[in-house]
Amino acid sequence: MTRPLITLTTDFGLSDHFVGTMKGVILAIQPAAQLIDISHGVHPYDIAEGAFTIAQAYPYFPKKTIHVVVVDPGVGTARRPLLAEMAGQYFIAPDNGVLSMVIAREAGARVRHITAERYFLHPLSRTFHGRDVFSPVAAHLAAGVTPAKFGKRIEDYICASFEKPAHTGKHTWAGTILKGDHFGNLATNFHIDQFPSIRTRAFSLNVGPRTITRLALRFSDCEPGELFVIVGSSGYLEVAASQGSAARVLGCGAGSPVELTIY
Amino acid sequence: MTRPLITLTTDFGLSDHFVGTMKGVILAIQPAAQLIDISHGVHPYDIAEGAFTIAQAYPYFPKKTIHVVVVDPGVGTARRPLLAEMAGQYFIAPDNGVLSMVIAREAGARVRHITAERYFLHPLSRTFHGRDVFSPVAAHLAAGVTPAKFGKRIEDYICASFEKPAHTGKHTWAGTILKGDHFGNLATNFHIDQFPSIRTRAFSLNVGPRTITRLALRFSDCEPGELFVIVGSSGYLEVAASQGSAARVLGCGAGSPVELTIY
Amino acid sequence: MTRPLITLTTDFGLSDHFVGTMKGVILAIQPAAQLIDISHGVHPYDIAEGAFTIAQAYPYFPKKTIHVVVVDPGVGTARRPLLAEMAGQYFIAPDNGVLSMVIAREAGARVRHITAERYFLHPLSRTFHGRDVFSPVAAHLAAGVTPAKFGKRIEDYICASFEKPAHTGKHTWAGTILKGDHFGNLATNFHIDQFPSIRTRAFSLNVGPRTITRLALRFSDCEPGELFVIVGSSGYLEVAASQGSAARVLGCGAGSPVELTIY
Repeated sequence: MTRPLITLTTDFGLSDHFVGTMKGVILAIQPAAQLIDISHGVHPYDIAEGAFTIAQAYPYFPKKTIHVVVVDPGVGTARRPLLAEMAGQYFIAPDNGVLSMVIAREAGARVRHITAERYFLHPLSRTFHGRDVFSPVAAHLAAGVTPAKFGKRIEDYICASFEKPAHTGKHTWAGTILKGDHFGNLATNFHIDQFPSIRTRAFSLNVGPRTITRLALRFSDCEPGELFVIVGSSGYLEVAASQGSAARVLGCGAGSPVELTIY
Repeated sequence: MTRPLITLTTDFGLSDHFVGTMKGVILAIQPAAQLIDISHGVHPYDIAEGAFTIAQAYPYFPKKTIHVVVVDPGVGTARRPLLAEMAGQYFIAPDNGVLSMVIAREAGARVRHITAERYFLHPLSRTFHGRDVFSPVAAHLAAGVTPAKFGKRIEDYICASFEKPAHTGKHTWAGTILKGDHFGNLATNFHIDQFPSIRTRAFSLNVGPRTITRLALRFSDCEPGELFVIVGSSGYLEVAASQGSAARVLGCGAGSPVELTIY
Repeated sequence: MTRPLITLTTDFGLSDHFVGTMKGVILAIQPAAQLIDISHGVHPYDIAEGAFTIAQAYPYFPKKTIHVVVVDPGVGTARRPLLAEMAGQYFIAPDNGVLSMVIAREAGARVRHITAERYFLHPLSRTFHGRDVFSPVAAHLAAGVTPAKFGKRIEDYICASFEKPAHTGKHTWAGTILKGDHFGNLATNFHIDQFPSIRTRAFSLNVGPRTITRLALRFSDCEPGELFVIVGSSGYLEVAASQGSAARVLGCGAGSPVELTIY
């Protein structure tokens, strides 16, 4: 008796009618759907940030959730719309790598190229496939259409490797900032599972103009303004400034390089 | 068994309790309501932008949807609250023109002046009719109160004409920017249905300091930064900058004049 | 047959996955929950603003609503998670004063220290208790777990006194700005119920560089740009600028001092 759950992750922002229109499309097809926004604040066209955002959220959703992810700089071109089954959930997105971080964590992704245009809105615009393709496909899936009806399995979907640090020296790794969040905390692509020794050994993290050597257990462990590294809620090492914005202090954001040395 | 659907479009922003409070009012009266935000990012007091926003979204919602539109600089004055039936849907809004773009597209609007104060919250504030008038009326409508119960039909409601370009020369029309969106794309009031020849003939569009002569089919057709015209997802000609913000490049936004010449 | 209603009020913003992730956690435990955002735009770590926000909204929600309020600068420390029953509704929040303005208005608050870790997510992070503590507790409560199961009653919870003006002279009170809203209106901590004589007597309100002596009934009573005092929708006196932002004109915001003299 539970209602089908559809989430939305886009770079559409909230100032326009775009997100509301997508929801109208979905509810006109499947009125029982429960709609949840993950975020519409992905920076415009930033596929890597979209990939990071959905990858942090999906593990907490129940089985059969349908995630619609629309960061789509290639809208209107031949880039393929995808329907992927992973982790017992569904993901609908353009084939541009925005699902890469989910795929990297889940074995056995089953990915389809959505070709069944009867499930699209018509006339099909060239500029708003969030409304005309991804939303109606999600709604029909939520209404019981089986995945195979939308198109054939493919293997050659784009899978970008956003997240791997490079081993650049005996004790040194080059990484990157994956995301600066609302608080100005900077998530690196160093995951605690890969760098557990940071908990017990001396280290230095170079980021922007500064070198950070302190690992804190909680945000409130440090003096106001102090920079430190913390294991973030997703397992990535984050750079934070106590009661402040590390992004602002360091002048860094998504894509900024970081260098980790463990002694 | 489907739940009544109520949408909200306001200039209230999302930083305060205003929108959440409206939802509490609605759910206290009609707990079964499904609440959908269209946008709360209309610029404060910008009736034209509110009119544009709801007009782009409503066609995608199912019959019987109740749209609450609150851009209401005259809150607390004698301006009338309206309940309009159009396109098989309901619209609740102040009588200030914010429904004009919907009315202009739909024949046979039936508009009522909401006077039945028994459906308002009391005490009635003079500053927050979104909470005290429009939300409870929407909730009672969703709970089954018939439109006639809220007030009498009127014909003299305000109907602004935001959207018509002026024919200023043999081949020239003066128009305006209706809205700059999250991506910096600028929607003009030139609709492709009225100017289909732009697809086949040479044209020039003057906007801000620049003259644009290119029509692109998709956003990705142009070089990064290049300015072009594109038929937007609502049918209006939009000015866009490839992978950039036309609004920023041109220094233009809602209300900026544009001039179209078709040769 | 109505679905359990859970509201969210946080300082998490909407640009990240945080709020969406909390909703996933809740729906995985209690799929029937109806989720309503009050605001996620509380300034980071601003407990007073969080306290104000939830206090303005909760009176409009139905009985049994569960309000989750997460403004939590002490996340990961020993600060206690609370479950409070007031006004026939539930409030789940850290013990840092963020519920103080609700408690101040409601007699007979029953407050519990949430200690039943079986209702938390595990592993428990030190940085995101919105996800790992407050959301799952709300979901289990919504699923029928009785309040007593979460922990024992306490009386020594933190109750800050944000809102009382100080009587500083025979006719003078010192107060503060509680909140600047989306429109730039500035809510003071002078409530009309405590200062009803402002309606009938001359007064002056010093705020920033200006002295205001006019009380308006509605926003549209004044000339564009004129500064005035108005009884806001929550009953607090607000400083407003007609068709403009008083916050910008005055350079004031939350925490700015104000001085009221009634003659």
